[in-house]
Amino acid sequence: MHIQDTITALATAPGAGAIAVIRVSGENAIPLVSSVFKAKSGKILEDQDSHTLHLGNIVDGSRIIDEALVSLFKGKRSYTGEPTVEISCHGSPYIQQEILQLLFRKGCRAAKAGEFTLRAFINGKMDLSQAEAVADLIASDNAGAHQIAMQQMRGGFSNEIAQLRQELLNFASLIELELDFAEEDVEFANREEFQELIAKITRVLKRLIDSFATGNVIKNGIPVAIVGEPNVGKSTLLNALLNEERAIVSDIAGTTRDTIEDELSIGGIGFRFIDTAGIRETIDVIEGLGIKKTFEKISQAQVVLYLINTPSAFGNATDGSAFTDLQIEIEKIKNRFPDKPLILVANKIDQLSDSEQQAISNQLFELLANTVKSSVLLISAKSGTGIDELKEQLLKFVNTGALRNNETLVTNSRHYDALLKALEEIEKVQMGIDAGLSGDLLAIDIREALYHFGEITGQVTNDELLGNIFANFCIGK
Amino acid sequence: MHIQDTITALATAPGAGAIAVIRVSGENAIPLVSSVFKAKSGKILEDQDSHTLHLGNIVDGSRIIDEALVSLFKGKRSYTGEPTVEISCHGSPYIQQEILQLLFRKGCRAAKAGEFTLRAFINGKMDLSQAEAVADLIASDNAGAHQIAMQQMRGGFSNEIAQLRQELLNFASLIELELDFAEEDVEFANREEFQELIAKITRVLKRLIDSFATGNVIKNGIPVAIVGEPNVGKSTLLNALLNEERAIVSDIAGTTRDTIEDELSIGGIGFRFIDTAGIRETIDVIEGLGIKKTFEKISQAQVVLYLINTPSAFGNATDGSAFTDLQIEIEKIKNRFPDKPLILVANKIDQLSDSEQQAISNQLFELLANTVKSSVLLISAKSGTGIDELKEQLLKFVNTGALRNNETLVTNSRHYDALLKALEEIEKVQMGIDAGLSGDLLAIDIREALYHFGEITGQVTNDELLGNIFANFCIGK
Repeated sequence: MHIQDTITALATAPGAGAIAVIRVSGENAIPLVSSVFKAKSGKILEDQDSHTLHLGNIVDGSRIIDEALVSLFKGKRSYTGEPTVEISCHGSPYIQQEILQLLFRKGCRAAKAGEFTLRAFINGKMDLSQAEAVADLIASDNAGAHQIAMQQMRGGFSNEIAQLRQELLNFASLIELELDFAEEDVEFANREEFQELIAKITRVLKRLIDSFATGNVIKNGIPVAIVGEPNVGKSTLLNALLNEERAIVSDIAGTTRDTIEDELSIGGIGFRFIDTAGIRETIDVIEGLGIKKTFEKISQAQVVLYLINTPSAFGNATDGSAFTDLQIEIEKIKNRFPDKPLILVANKIDQLSDSEQQAISNQLFELLANTVKSSVLLISAKSGTGIDELKEQLLKFVNTGALRNNETLVTNSRHYDALLKALEEIEKVQMGIDAGLSGDLLAIDIREALYHFGEITGQVTNDELLGNIFANFCIGK
Repeated sequence: MHIQDTITALATAPGAGAIAVIRVSGENAIPLVSSVFKAKSGKILEDQDSHTLHLGNIVDGSRIIDEALVSLFKGKRSYTGEPTVEISCHGSPYIQQEILQLLFRKGCRAAKAGEFTLRAFINGKMDLSQAEAVADLIASDNAGAHQIAMQQMRGGFSNEIAQLRQELLNFASLIELELDFAEEDVEFANREEFQELIAKITRVLKRLIDSFATGNVIKNGIPVAIVGEPNVGKSTLLNALLNEERAIVSDIAGTTRDTIEDELSIGGIGFRFIDTAGIRETIDVIEGLGIKKTFEKISQAQVVLYLINTPSAFGNATDGSAFTDLQIEIEKIKNRFPDKPLILVANKIDQLSDSEQQAISNQLFELLANTVKSSVLLISAKSGTGIDELKEQLLKFVNTGALRNNETLVTNSRHYDALLKALEEIEKVQMGIDAGLSGDLLAIDIREALYHFGEITGQVTNDELLGNIFANFCIGK
């Protein structure tokens, strides 16, 4: 891979700010910036120490483009592992562009998305899973996603993989050594210890693979489907949860035909609330499509939040028909998604007396009596009553124990795929051991497993894979 | 003014970037950041040299918020003239907020708009006109505005004012000294030299005041009114000039009822193009309002660009009525705005033969024969013919000589007001000299003039004025 050229890009967010930072990296970065920089002190950049700051002018011949502060990172002591200069200039987009254009004229090339981090990987400053975590960290918008990305960036995940890989590699070498002495029938690799290692690797791989379910939703936000008849107050509830006016609240039943997705951080965990059209039985074709969509959304959600317009569902005590309808619909969801956590939320209780509330609460608890992972809450989205309890309940239905215990969670589907493949190979090795296969045959599957471990950390890689990974980065990182 | 507290703000543009910079300034800035920073090297921030960079973790107790690079500016060696730390962190808005919240908990206060620059002014790192230039520099979006702001920030304007002020101050002191020796009737201040100085100050003030006309429009963009009948191709011309599809182009006459303002940098000068509804005579009330608005826009513009649908205006050679209409309308503009530069642009010439073009060109030149500052151009906005010539002509009508000669240009209306007031006082001094007024009376007017000079550089100031000036800054600067 050609990394002789010097690359540059705006590293801070685009647009106008007080200051902006332009990053320049490459073997020639320091003399190149030095050719357009006049330090106030008169000092020459090349002669200065690494990790020092210098005030001066960015100049194009006699024209001063800006007063700027220049940071020097010499040798391998930089983010990219190659000489780097960061130019901190005034934050006008015009000035940013003028400086970048000047650097281009002096021989810099515009950095591609993620190219600084790609160089950090190539120069051995981080492994591939750490590099991927940098993008996750920048994209993180809640404490959970941030914690996972930070742990991965700091090598938590790589260390676990690298350790397993090293132990497996040792055994592979011993088994391959046996092949050289095949005629003497020696066993360098202790088969009992090897069996233990394979069992341990299997356990760890299964745990990591299982963690993807949690890790991936924490990274992307836990999907919660809000289900309920039109006019039960879904938009008002969303607003109460979001504490701002994102969804359009309307009094006309059925106005929320399209799903509204919105994110909210509760207790440091990101939740994605999915407003659905409800599941009211109807002969209307469009409504029917809405119901189909609602079931689709429920299947994608981790938690279902069933919202009831309580006064209307329980309003006429002599006629239990509304409540019967509710019963039927809840049954439908329970039958279709028996293991999905369900929160029954009785809304608009501000319109009911205390005794009415108590009676309704009892009925609803009875309705869910035989349902695991379910809960009943009485709220008023309008006044805010019960909203905090609802947030608590949502957190309870999410497995955040792994996060609290700082366990390694897999969040990246590329890693997940590699782990699945590694497990497949390890299971082949296990079957081989069980079948008393010879070392040379075991070694093939072990090498395959090692290959997939290497894919995660980047010991095994190719240009296309790297291209795909770093293309998802932002420019300047 | 209370500047004991430590302030912090995001200094880079808001939103997500690869990195973000959080600035912390105040007497306590370094120990405060040190309390949340663990250097990889294990070194303590307080013990490090100024202008050095340190890699480490931003921590909240045991929780790591981010890996960050910290820049140290000790003593008065910073932008603000007080100890400053810049935290270069990952560019996620979540991380930015977490770090800011952590700093608030540790005792930082959120910096107000422009507060870092206000401190730089209070701490004597720059005068008031230089501080104002910082905001202009960040807002600059073309070479002209950038050059003026940079010159002012580097003290060009202040130096000119400060020098006049000093010379005047010397004379004021001598004249006031005479008052102490009033009975002895001595003259410490040479009246001839004093007269020369007053004449020189008058010249410089008049030049600076005159320069505001140029400086202000260069800073804000030179307004050009595009006038013409509906369907002459105004939107197409705007697009050709802007080289992109900003205005909505339509074939229906009269679609451009509202003015469209758009900016374009030509030869480093910012132009603001103002699309008008034309001045076609009509009895329609709404059209009539459009005409009134067009004349208003012309009065605000520096240049008028009169656009003609050439094939339709000259299409029927046997009937010169369209051309007569044109003649009448051009006369209207010339009568109303005799000194305003006027460019007659004959559009759609791609639909005409060469000989037709020649004939029309002759007629149009004749139409403007007795008009100063006018020009005729044949173009095709659609094909781009003549667009470069039009840009050149626009530049010719703008006085950019001052810019080329790097003269001091006044761009700030606060400075302009102070200069007008200073001139008024200097003229009073001149009248006093002419009337043979005594030194004690001259001294009063001299002091008034000195006061207004001091307003520009900030030697004379008050909290309300500073509040107004810095409120227009962005947060973080």
